[in-house]
Amino acid sequence: MNNKKTTSIKRIALLTSGGDAPGMNAAIRSVVLAAHHYHIEVIGFYHGYNGLVCEEHIAMAEPLTLLKVNSIIHLGGTILKSARCQLMHEAKGLQLAADTLNDKNIDALVVIGGDGSFSGLLALQAYWSGQMIGIPGTIDNDLDGTDYTIGFATAVNTGIEAIDKIRDTADAFERIFIVELMGRHCGHITFNVGIACAAEQVLSFENFNANEQSSKLQQLATEITTAKKNRHSSYIIVIAENLWPGGAVELARQLHLQADIECTPCILGHIQRGGSPIAKDRILATKMGVAAVQALIDGESNIMVAEQNNAMNFITLDEAIKHKKVVSKQLIDAQQNILALTAQTQC
Amino acid sequence: MNNKKTTSIKRIALLTSGGDAPGMNAAIRSVVLAAHHYHIEVIGFYHGYNGLVCEEHIAMAEPLTLLKVNSIIHLGGTILKSARCQLMHEAKGLQLAADTLNDKNIDALVVIGGDGSFSGLLALQAYWSGQMIGIPGTIDNDLDGTDYTIGFATAVNTGIEAIDKIRDTADAFERIFIVELMGRHCGHITFNVGIACAAEQVLSFENFNANEQSSKLQQLATEITTAKKNRHSSYIIVIAENLWPGGAVELARQLHLQADIECTPCILGHIQRGGSPIAKDRILATKMGVAAVQALIDGESNIMVAEQNNAMNFITLDEAIKHKKVVSKQLIDAQQNILALTAQTQC
Amino acid sequence: MNNKKTTSIKRIALLTSGGDAPGMNAAIRSVVLAAHHYHIEVIGFYHGYNGLVCEEHIAMAEPLTLLKVNSIIHLGGTILKSARCQLMHEAKGLQLAADTLNDKNIDALVVIGGDGSFSGLLALQAYWSGQMIGIPGTIDNDLDGTDYTIGFATAVNTGIEAIDKIRDTADAFERIFIVELMGRHCGHITFNVGIACAAEQVLSFENFNANEQSSKLQQLATEITTAKKNRHSSYIIVIAENLWPGGAVELARQLHLQADIECTPCILGHIQRGGSPIAKDRILATKMGVAAVQALIDGESNIMVAEQNNAMNFITLDEAIKHKKVVSKQLIDAQQNILALTAQTQC
Amino acid sequence: MNNKKTTSIKRIALLTSGGDAPGMNAAIRSVVLAAHHYHIEVIGFYHGYNGLVCEEHIAMAEPLTLLKVNSIIHLGGTILKSARCQLMHEAKGLQLAADTLNDKNIDALVVIGGDGSFSGLLALQAYWSGQMIGIPGTIDNDLDGTDYTIGFATAVNTGIEAIDKIRDTADAFERIFIVELMGRHCGHITFNVGIACAAEQVLSFENFNANEQSSKLQQLATEITTAKKNRHSSYIIVIAENLWPGGAVELARQLHLQADIECTPCILGHIQRGGSPIAKDRILATKMGVAAVQALIDGESNIMVAEQNNAMNFITLDEAIKHKKVVSKQLIDAQQNILALTAQTQC
Repeated sequence: MNNKKTTSIKRIALLTSGGDAPGMNAAIRSVVLAAHHYHIEVIGFYHGYNGLVCEEHIAMAEPLTLLKVNSIIHLGGTILKSARCQLMHEAKGLQLAADTLNDKNIDALVVIGGDGSFSGLLALQAYWSGQMIGIPGTIDNDLDGTDYTIGFATAVNTGIEAIDKIRDTADAFERIFIVELMGRHCGHITFNVGIACAAEQVLSFENFNANEQSSKLQQLATEITTAKKNRHSSYIIVIAENLWPGGAVELARQLHLQADIECTPCILGHIQRGGSPIAKDRILATKMGVAAVQALIDGESNIMVAEQNNAMNFITLDEAIKHKKVVSKQLIDAQQNILALTAQTQC
Repeated sequence: MNNKKTTSIKRIALLTSGGDAPGMNAAIRSVVLAAHHYHIEVIGFYHGYNGLVCEEHIAMAEPLTLLKVNSIIHLGGTILKSARCQLMHEAKGLQLAADTLNDKNIDALVVIGGDGSFSGLLALQAYWSGQMIGIPGTIDNDLDGTDYTIGFATAVNTGIEAIDKIRDTADAFERIFIVELMGRHCGHITFNVGIACAAEQVLSFENFNANEQSSKLQQLATEITTAKKNRHSSYIIVIAENLWPGGAVELARQLHLQADIECTPCILGHIQRGGSPIAKDRILATKMGVAAVQALIDGESNIMVAEQNNAMNFITLDEAIKHKKVVSKQLIDAQQNILALTAQTQC
Repeated sequence: MNNKKTTSIKRIALLTSGGDAPGMNAAIRSVVLAAHHYHIEVIGFYHGYNGLVCEEHIAMAEPLTLLKVNSIIHLGGTILKSARCQLMHEAKGLQLAADTLNDKNIDALVVIGGDGSFSGLLALQAYWSGQMIGIPGTIDNDLDGTDYTIGFATAVNTGIEAIDKIRDTADAFERIFIVELMGRHCGHITFNVGIACAAEQVLSFENFNANEQSSKLQQLATEITTAKKNRHSSYIIVIAENLWPGGAVELARQLHLQADIECTPCILGHIQRGGSPIAKDRILATKMGVAAVQALIDGESNIMVAEQNNAMNFITLDEAIKHKKVVSKQLIDAQQNILALTAQTQC
Repeated sequence: MNNKKTTSIKRIALLTSGGDAPGMNAAIRSVVLAAHHYHIEVIGFYHGYNGLVCEEHIAMAEPLTLLKVNSIIHLGGTILKSARCQLMHEAKGLQLAADTLNDKNIDALVVIGGDGSFSGLLALQAYWSGQMIGIPGTIDNDLDGTDYTIGFATAVNTGIEAIDKIRDTADAFERIFIVELMGRHCGHITFNVGIACAAEQVLSFENFNANEQSSKLQQLATEITTAKKNRHSSYIIVIAENLWPGGAVELARQLHLQADIECTPCILGHIQRGGSPIAKDRILATKMGVAAVQALIDGESNIMVAEQNNAMNFITLDEAIKHKKVVSKQLIDAQQNILALTAQTQC
């Protein structure tokens, strides 16, 4: 944020990249509305960075009119489509992207996405001199420096709505379920869903080391057995994806084999990623879209819009992706030291 | 329905059995309200037939008061719990059940469940002389003689809500998803969900023979390739569980190996079984509960309550489980001959 | 259905008219897909019959491509817009509509709407000789000859979701609520919602005569007082719109004035009309759209597509609007003679 | 927080007071679980402060076991019931409350509610020497010192789900709706819902003075007319309750009379107050419940648990109710200066 100067930009390029997240469309709408307000044109590029580097996708680029974004605030997914783009990891691709932006007379590039998408922006700096700004859109909530990323609140809520349903069957049969949640390599979704659905166990990167798999299995078996002895009720374990080798299915198999405990594994999968964004994500996305445009006008570049303490702020892209944001210790403590322990006691 | 006589029953036993289905609680409430109206007591037995045969569960039996069922119409699962019960397949278990019913001075037994539960009722006839009536509660909708079973409408709706979310990501990435649905050995859920979520392909028992697996794979690959060439959009295949050996995961693997087609498999699993029942299931359950009690007063026995052409009716338990109800030919035709074909044409 | 002949129609006009209903878009999609399958073009006219008679709206008419209807099955409202159209009640308007249809080389007109919309079709017969077919789309479910109209199932479900929420506050405060529901002059929505949300009272055209207002007020007061004395809990009255002079607000005022009973009135209003259609309405709409196109090919005219006993059928437009469909006596009986009475007894 | 001392409390009294809010049950559960963990008993008092002062309600007080709170995290309303209590405004009532707390050997009183409830706590200080702590539970979000109150996030989300449905009809008919939202005397709900449902106008205490009613009406009329001329689409005004004399109905009438603009008024009413809490409120409530118990153990009294910058904190009850929390200026600016203006421009 050192290179601050007031600019008079005329044309913004906008794209969504990486895994889609509910609220991306609300952010697109907000960028377009704010830009329109300041008499700036927004060109939408399709299919993530492919929209800047692949002939076929470049051809789809088009002005985003108010009409196009008028009725999208409530839609999941992204009207600009998304994709991974291998070429952006190569000098050739970065040059292609720069060429496209120059060809189209773009003054500033706004990318809605996660850490991979922002790495792309950082790499592009060496090839293109326009302003660049990132808007954090990912269900994983793993970007440092912002309290929340767009899509996280909806993904957590979708998770609990699914598990509320699973709880019905679990209660009816007093059965044990292992529910696998998205989140890549962070426990934000897992811990929040776990607490909000009153899971008896939360198993995530923050409270499990890969090398203690066998002792953890033993501990789990003991805790489940204690709980089932003390209370006639259902028992739900939520577990982060990419945590247990083989996932929920394998954990269920091992608990059966080694402790004669029957569990039903469930993988929530892609239902967590879509759906109409809840209010929180629509508002966050709207505020961030406005803030992004205003930051560009203020001459900012190489920053990510961030929500800090309920207010809009900015951090450098560099900082945003340097570390994964960690899950709040207060939250983990409450779950581990109070709730999980109580779940084993007589009821 | 031959053995009709007007009886003056005083005490009904009520239990839920087999897989839980949304609306079971609405049916419980309705039986209790109607019985109360006719000055009949209802005793709730817990954990399915185990409530009649296992000491531990028999001990839980209790009168179902109006207060207990006052606020349950909207709850998924079953407050009477459910379970499978191996003992009911043996003479010993059937005798135990009869003894319990006699001990408790039960005049009539009402079971909410599916075909397995009704087989139990039929077997019990040789051991117990009270009246018996079944209320069809299963998400599978596979009971012959009733247009709908309690839970089916909700399960279908839960299926489309999940796939609507998956569609967001599928659209954003123009990706192919294979979504596996419940339904045991019938395509009611699969065809209805498939049509209602605009699935490009429906794969179920009704349009697939196990021995034509390899030709089907070839056909699928051709159709997907045609569709993807003709239209840039998502592509969703819904598939019945227990249909393709290895399920959605294996089908995805084979499409990748043999036709280089990338698909993401999703198994909806137990989220389809729970949740607050939609209005249709609450109303159906309420009507069936009232009809069951009135039929008992009319002296009916060994029958299942059935909805036929929007009206309450009855069929013998025998008939109800003799055949699986087949999926409407009109529905299959519309899907196969119109919708699925159109999904491959230029868009 | 007398004038049956096989025709080779080439171009269908399609419009939605009257109050919008969830599932109208699913019906539009289905007509377009089926027509496409039979190589028939569909021209969409906008804003109901205005699309045929007003210059400004005629100009909006356009071919409905597969692309346009590809992602609309889950959307509430209608992409063809809707409106009332005064001109269609006059000879001049009818002649204008006929002229437009002839100008555009339309062979057949398909209208998705309710009884008012179908009266328009009947009136048009004298001015235009093309085939005409109606698809019943209205939340009121009041068209005779079809078991269900498109939108009804969703409207009922939306009603219970709202009242489930109201019940939370009603329970917390043990308070009485009067909830006013849509339905114009029929109790289909009111009775179905009433039963599905376990309303203690259902007040609709079917169990209330306008001229017995004062005796009904007295009866209501007595029943409420009895119920509140017998059970500490909430009490919900659902009431049809256009029933009680002044509606729920006035009824609450009178109960307060004349019997010192405090009730909170709630008017659900337009939230009942919109929203994503539930599976039932999507499937019904899809089947009806296909059936409409096939009927046109079979040479049918002046008919409405109808669902009877779960199968597609047809009745004349004349029959469809001659009488309002009545609410099932079985349903009313269950509510009035069992459920409502039980709600007053000790709990 | 001055009077801090470590205490060894044995028995907590818990009650919910004022308007119910989604998440109150999650807070109840959390207090009970945390207390159980620290070997503290929780006595639940029913019907708000009436539970402490009315014979009939005092008699309902009972220990809250783990079993009682095991399955309530997802339920709207409050299992402890709520009510207003006139007696707590009088010395007599306060003395009665103190007597009850002493009789029952209560060491600490936890109240979940809003500013009225906390005034009660403050008044009680002169009569009772036990520890007292407030947990902010109100949909209005108007308590100073906490970023969020329990129930607010759900109420906002319920608001947008309702308006998403209304938007369908508004779009189909290109009609203007005025939707009245709860919020007592604060615009938190109104502004957040307004932004999240893309309302064309937000009318709340923060941007409207009662004495400028007639100029505001003129301005509204001008803006609506401009917007409707520039774009063929729906137009939604959200308005706070208690703002415009006569509310949405009267505003609609005046716009019709004075500017010939037709609007449909909708009052969302009590559906905003109930319903299953979304994840945010369940997590907030859980964290606050744990924090409250830990604060009591730490000897705190006369404080309210607060979430500040995503972490648990405490402020004095005095501070909490001294001022209404104001709506974020950033949010208002974005809505008023960007979004609302853009809504009038050509689309």
